[in-house]
Amino acid sequence: MRLTKFSDYALRVLLFAASVDDGRLVTIEETAALYDISRAHLKKVVRLLIHEGYLEGLRGRTGGFRLGRPPAEINLGALLRLTEPDFGMVECFLPENNCLITRQCRLPVLINEALAALISVFDAHTLADILVDQRHFGGVPTLPLPQRGPHLPPLPGAAAARD
Amino acid sequence: MRLTKFSDYALRVLLFAASVDDGRLVTIEETAALYDISRAHLKKVVRLLIHEGYLEGLRGRTGGFRLGRPPAEINLGALLRLTEPDFGMVECFLPENNCLITRQCRLPVLINEALAALISVFDAHTLADILVDQRHFGGVPTLPLPQRGPHLPPLPGAAAARD
Repeated sequence: MRLTKFSDYALRVLLFAASVDDGRLVTIEETAALYDISRAHLKKVVRLLIHEGYLEGLRGRTGGFRLGRPPAEINLGALLRLTEPDFGMVECFLPENNCLITRQCRLPVLINEALAALISVFDAHTLADILVDQRHFGGVPTLPLPQRGPHLPPLPGAAAARD
Repeated sequence: MRLTKFSDYALRVLLFAASVDDGRLVTIEETAALYDISRAHLKKVVRLLIHEGYLEGLRGRTGGFRLGRPPAEINLGALLRLTEPDFGMVECFLPENNCLITRQCRLPVLINEALAALISVFDAHTLADILVDQRHFGGVPTLPLPQRGPHLPPLPGAAAARD
């Protein structure tokens, strides 16, 4: 289970834009190089974020973008609802559903409950809660980068099916 | 954000096997035809579920499989941990992580919290909670099948970034 790269990049471009506190504009080229990610893909992300007011874009040779609203007004749940194309966890969540037990199955109820639990965590936070200081965007890491997740909770004891 | 097809199929094959209460064996061909899904993909799913004891497989011309343990002993969180290849929600959750702000970023903390909330819902349920009666596996639906999700909760009022 993954977020789309689109969501991943949206979060990262906002973190970078938010770190630039002197009002200067950042560019797609600079951001793509910084994170070592696709410029073409990032361009689509930035276009949407400008369209939705998360970023303010200025055209022209000296153009670029900067944060379009204060970090505390960028709710991460709202952002995720915008950047994830769907939350189509299983076939019956998608328009092309073909599963014959759709009407009777209780799995969708469970999955909707799980999705609500997940999105509620994002809903409770804004970009202001996860800001990264500008100095951490400089330089190239000299040590290998760690893997930060996932950290799933241990399965509750006796209920574990694989014990 | 989606579960892999592997997880989707695993849940469905277990639901079908659990519905067969007369002890008869079901086959990959029958299950693939029933759900109109890939036989080759389903085969891999069934192989893993047999290996892990969720299904009991019997070889031979009259072979097939049936549930390997009671539905109440099939914890859905444990199943998901088995069938999802990773919960690599963002780049820094994956071994090939290349994001330069990895050490300082607080996004992974938030995402781990959200993942924990999601998996905890599955951990609290077993296959017994979502069983579908055998009669619902018969016949071809005559009406178009509905879309069952996702149903995300509304964004909490004043915090909404897009209002």
